[in-house]
Amino acid sequence: MATRMKAAIFVEPGRIVLDEKPIPQPGPLDALMRITTTTICGTDVHILKGEYPVARGLTIGHEPVGVIEKLGSAVQGYREGQRVIAGAITPSGYSNACLCGCLSQDGGHGKHGFKAMGGWRFGNTIDGTQAEYVLVPDAMTNLAVVPDDLTDEQVLMCPDIMSTGFSGAESGGVRLGDSVAVFAQGPIGLCASAGAKLMGATTVIGVDGIAKRLSMSRAVGADITIDYHAADPVEEIMRLTDGRGVDVAIEALGTQGTFEAALRVLRPGGTLSSLGVYSTDLRIPLDAFSAGLGDHRIVTTLCPGGKERMRRLMEVIRAGRLDLKPMVTHRFRLDDIEAAYELFSNQRDGVLKVAITP
Amino acid sequence: MATRMKAAIFVEPGRIVLDEKPIPQPGPLDALMRITTTTICGTDVHILKGEYPVARGLTIGHEPVGVIEKLGSAVQGYREGQRVIAGAITPSGYSNACLCGCLSQDGGHGKHGFKAMGGWRFGNTIDGTQAEYVLVPDAMTNLAVVPDDLTDEQVLMCPDIMSTGFSGAESGGVRLGDSVAVFAQGPIGLCASAGAKLMGATTVIGVDGIAKRLSMSRAVGADITIDYHAADPVEEIMRLTDGRGVDVAIEALGTQGTFEAALRVLRPGGTLSSLGVYSTDLRIPLDAFSAGLGDHRIVTTLCPGGKERMRRLMEVIRAGRLDLKPMVTHRFRLDDIEAAYELFSNQRDGVLKVAITP
Amino acid sequence: MATRMKAAIFVEPGRIVLDEKPIPQPGPLDALMRITTTTICGTDVHILKGEYPVARGLTIGHEPVGVIEKLGSAVQGYREGQRVIAGAITPSGYSNACLCGCLSQDGGHGKHGFKAMGGWRFGNTIDGTQAEYVLVPDAMTNLAVVPDDLTDEQVLMCPDIMSTGFSGAESGGVRLGDSVAVFAQGPIGLCASAGAKLMGATTVIGVDGIAKRLSMSRAVGADITIDYHAADPVEEIMRLTDGRGVDVAIEALGTQGTFEAALRVLRPGGTLSSLGVYSTDLRIPLDAFSAGLGDHRIVTTLCPGGKERMRRLMEVIRAGRLDLKPMVTHRFRLDDIEAAYELFSNQRDGVLKVAITP
Amino acid sequence: MATRMKAAIFVEPGRIVLDEKPIPQPGPLDALMRITTTTICGTDVHILKGEYPVARGLTIGHEPVGVIEKLGSAVQGYREGQRVIAGAITPSGYSNACLCGCLSQDGGHGKHGFKAMGGWRFGNTIDGTQAEYVLVPDAMTNLAVVPDDLTDEQVLMCPDIMSTGFSGAESGGVRLGDSVAVFAQGPIGLCASAGAKLMGATTVIGVDGIAKRLSMSRAVGADITIDYHAADPVEEIMRLTDGRGVDVAIEALGTQGTFEAALRVLRPGGTLSSLGVYSTDLRIPLDAFSAGLGDHRIVTTLCPGGKERMRRLMEVIRAGRLDLKPMVTHRFRLDDIEAAYELFSNQRDGVLKVAITP
Repeated sequence: MATRMKAAIFVEPGRIVLDEKPIPQPGPLDALMRITTTTICGTDVHILKGEYPVARGLTIGHEPVGVIEKLGSAVQGYREGQRVIAGAITPSGYSNACLCGCLSQDGGHGKHGFKAMGGWRFGNTIDGTQAEYVLVPDAMTNLAVVPDDLTDEQVLMCPDIMSTGFSGAESGGVRLGDSVAVFAQGPIGLCASAGAKLMGATTVIGVDGIAKRLSMSRAVGADITIDYHAADPVEEIMRLTDGRGVDVAIEALGTQGTFEAALRVLRPGGTLSSLGVYSTDLRIPLDAFSAGLGDHRIVTTLCPGGKERMRRLMEVIRAGRLDLKPMVTHRFRLDDIEAAYELFSNQRDGVLKVAITP
Repeated sequence: MATRMKAAIFVEPGRIVLDEKPIPQPGPLDALMRITTTTICGTDVHILKGEYPVARGLTIGHEPVGVIEKLGSAVQGYREGQRVIAGAITPSGYSNACLCGCLSQDGGHGKHGFKAMGGWRFGNTIDGTQAEYVLVPDAMTNLAVVPDDLTDEQVLMCPDIMSTGFSGAESGGVRLGDSVAVFAQGPIGLCASAGAKLMGATTVIGVDGIAKRLSMSRAVGADITIDYHAADPVEEIMRLTDGRGVDVAIEALGTQGTFEAALRVLRPGGTLSSLGVYSTDLRIPLDAFSAGLGDHRIVTTLCPGGKERMRRLMEVIRAGRLDLKPMVTHRFRLDDIEAAYELFSNQRDGVLKVAITP
Repeated sequence: MATRMKAAIFVEPGRIVLDEKPIPQPGPLDALMRITTTTICGTDVHILKGEYPVARGLTIGHEPVGVIEKLGSAVQGYREGQRVIAGAITPSGYSNACLCGCLSQDGGHGKHGFKAMGGWRFGNTIDGTQAEYVLVPDAMTNLAVVPDDLTDEQVLMCPDIMSTGFSGAESGGVRLGDSVAVFAQGPIGLCASAGAKLMGATTVIGVDGIAKRLSMSRAVGADITIDYHAADPVEEIMRLTDGRGVDVAIEALGTQGTFEAALRVLRPGGTLSSLGVYSTDLRIPLDAFSAGLGDHRIVTTLCPGGKERMRRLMEVIRAGRLDLKPMVTHRFRLDDIEAAYELFSNQRDGVLKVAITP
Repeated sequence: MATRMKAAIFVEPGRIVLDEKPIPQPGPLDALMRITTTTICGTDVHILKGEYPVARGLTIGHEPVGVIEKLGSAVQGYREGQRVIAGAITPSGYSNACLCGCLSQDGGHGKHGFKAMGGWRFGNTIDGTQAEYVLVPDAMTNLAVVPDDLTDEQVLMCPDIMSTGFSGAESGGVRLGDSVAVFAQGPIGLCASAGAKLMGATTVIGVDGIAKRLSMSRAVGADITIDYHAADPVEEIMRLTDGRGVDVAIEALGTQGTFEAALRVLRPGGTLSSLGVYSTDLRIPLDAFSAGLGDHRIVTTLCPGGKERMRRLMEVIRAGRLDLKPMVTHRFRLDDIEAAYELFSNQRDGVLKVAITP
């Protein structure tokens, strides 16, 4: 086996480059995974632009599909050569946060076991997946075996996009017969729309400004789409719901405008389920919030991880409930990842997601 | 029976006066209740000051203890002369909102059955309780019989203060062994502290700036109190929780400062339970919110009403779990209600709550 | 308007006959509904056979589709001539049971407000729907307006079959990616299978012994069906789930055999959601129950009622998520209802549900 | 350090003897714990009597208080010499069962990750705690550091009795103002009563036949106790609740009689929370179950484990919410454990729990 590998590395704001690194050796709880397919996430673009700080020299990426190359000495229950994925969030399994079900806010060995966003390690606090190999920490908690009948691209959205998007519907508590509005129909918003429909919402409304995304929104589950260039989404949703508002509004972009619109279309007693990564303070308008007396809920969710989550998401795909392959609009070799970043970060050519193969 | 009664009436901003009105006649679903004790709420002071608009001529007040004087023609299951209370919020029972458990956002006969704050009728959209008599709408849903062994003052807090305060802990999802911080220890904050303890929180932290309130906070259940004049509550709570933050933070005042502090002391994955009535837009600081990735929940609750809620709250008192009589610091005759407003609205003489008896 | 109407009346065990009765007059909270379509339920057959006792002379039936003929004097928010349905269970809205969300166990005016099965009134404690007219009690709580674009037969299953069947999935807490087994694929079991799929289950397994029902099971949502004549359902389900068992098992028949099988296919920590009406004591085998240490849940649900429930179910149909018209296999005039009973009670000619039109 | 230790070993039905064994060496994920205090559980008596089969030669016991003697090579976040406890149930943290919150039904490395009662390992599938040393598996998931201000005996009930008893109230969903009946007031039933009160129940009814247990029941939280020799508990509870029944009934013995009584005192829509270990099939009487139409829930819970659970329970004790030291009625040296078994298994001398110190 080679000792060095290619990896997409954060050099400085504005520069992620393909470079060489040693192939890492797994510690006792780790697994070394050979990447067969990975992708670029909007968060990686934030990192590229220097908007989200990571250490220089870090390998970027958090969406791995691959094969177990080598298991740590204490890892049981797997064998080398198995096809696996791991979530973008890799909880330890043993922290206090994990043990009370809060897998994403994992404080690891920390004294009290909680750390904001602590479960997000790939491409954030440890080397990520845009490389030929990646170390998966706490492998027994995180490695999910891919069923033979699913291809890499079929499961490529599970680690982040699908897990995050679905969680928007799940944390929102979507129930049979609900009306749900989803603000922004990028990859995560599309999965939120799909998740809302799969949970039984009967009026799923997708909002975006790009025709192709609105058309994909209808394909994955939206009953109605609103182009915000053509109509005011708040007015339109209130009209569609006969003045009642929606049971659940999902924010899937991360801006004041979409957050506020989501609040304004919520029925009294409804839930705003927020998925976006914000970059400014948020404002809650007094009127949209009924001065605090509207029994509103605002819930936020960071991409759920862990192998059981991955198993469930793969079951959804395997059962034919949702096909996310059309979301992969472009394909690149790892050698060409800089071009992939150029395309993806500029949202050129109608790109939704890219597949990167080493 | 007399045909006219005394009532505290909103005349214009700055003026609530005692005047005479006809004693109303119950419609088929109403009950006429003779008030034996009522009180003044902070919300009434907002009305007095013109900060919350109500119709001129409206009788103010929403916390009734009394006796059934006359039942509407379609009301069954009660008899005249029974001692009863009704919640500050009087849900219809039959609206779509009620039927899905959202009693406070009751749209009544409205086409879709939801209306923000629609359950709040007394002293808001219909005549209130600071009078000799009040009409209780949807009486079968709202009249709760007072057990013989409880006095008026023992149950006087049930209609609003105790129901609202407890709901802060309930909506926050307080669990056995939780740490809970409650911001402001006025009547509602005190009941939130008591509620958190009664639900099993093991570290209840009451924050206020008035010594007497802090002492009452300890009396009703706080394990620790923080005088914000003496220490920064956020720093102190983070120190007390070893850097973890609290599981649930309850906002019981309605200001940007307390809202923000509540968010800052929340552990990742924790719940901010908001009870305050805000008068300005709210700001969510990006850092305190982990940019939307902290699995935080912000929940708001309007005082739960209905006779089953009242029954439960009276059971808490009857079982000796909580004694709220010490909260009644001053007593007035209805004839002197203008003086009571003067005292209460200026928070003079250490007033917490006043009892008003016609 | 005529003063007398035709109605299917329970005379004695073995005899339900069509007879004449006075058209009733609505009390203040009632509505008189002119029936346009109704149906016969398995429960009605229990009544016919004398297995479930009701008063002699009672009109049978609890699944009304019709038009408001006359409103009680205190009923607001409706107008005569509106097309409406009401649930099989007609909660009052104002009892303590209703106010804590337990709509089906409604004690009405009773002193504590709870009564086992108290919400079931039509054709049980008051005259039912197999007639030209029916009084709907607590009309404001129960009348749900039918959207113009839905036919009678499209909504005929909402009052009972669909509400009950869906509640099997809802009370079972079906989640995205769950595996669910449904024992018996009669009308309720079919709706349970459909409900499980609509809530996101990815492996829905329908069990029955009749080919036509298994084929309809696949049509409404089952991924896999098991004919219990061809294979042992417990063994087959354990094989299909790789030895794990299902997350949720729904019992939709009401026998010891199906109850026990449902328990045996449950994974540790799973939920048995029981819909059946049992006629004997039930036995929980020690091994299937892990001696009480398996974190199992057994939940039972009586058909949820109330207008908000009906609204939601009609939304499911309107959104095209489920088409229950194929479940109506036979049609009869009310005049021929005795023949309908004969067919239905003997399960002749592949009958699933009959539509009865006055 | 010595290489051999004393341990209470299951030899054959009827014989648990103190013998010598090698002190085990920790694997990479284990910790070797030196026991300072342990106890005997009712389950150990079942093992002694041969009613629950374990391997011959196994060390018995599952309630450890002690000191970390040696950490496995992959264990981080602890140091040798720390005072710790571990739960009776030692979840792995990484199984699929754990990752969906079902910690007690842990299938470890098994292919699907679930195994009925799989989390119970101490004194069941691996050597237990009635010894000088014990290996704690998956140490990072299970070791909870004991606060300095708590003694061994103060935390001795946390691993099993208190965790199990409290879970009876938690799984029952006890709410503020609930009425709760607890059947049997042995150690677990006493903790269930205490847990119900701590969660806000306002009528806690403890049922037993032994005066000392009834008196301790009142001491830990019961409002009312019923001696089943003096009155029929079902009749008495229905009288006390005015015919309504209790919101939650907790079974804490494991017999048909208590299970059935718990069902009979349940209000419609109530929850039977079962903690007992049964030794025969259970019967659900048709009438007590409303033929399956009473919206009843039956939930079972196996002692929750993991370090976060232990931390919470210790917080309850530390906050002074509950004092379980009086439950330790007898003390023995490990050398005398056979005498302790003799006393405990025959329930002589009013024994509740014994403390065993090596």
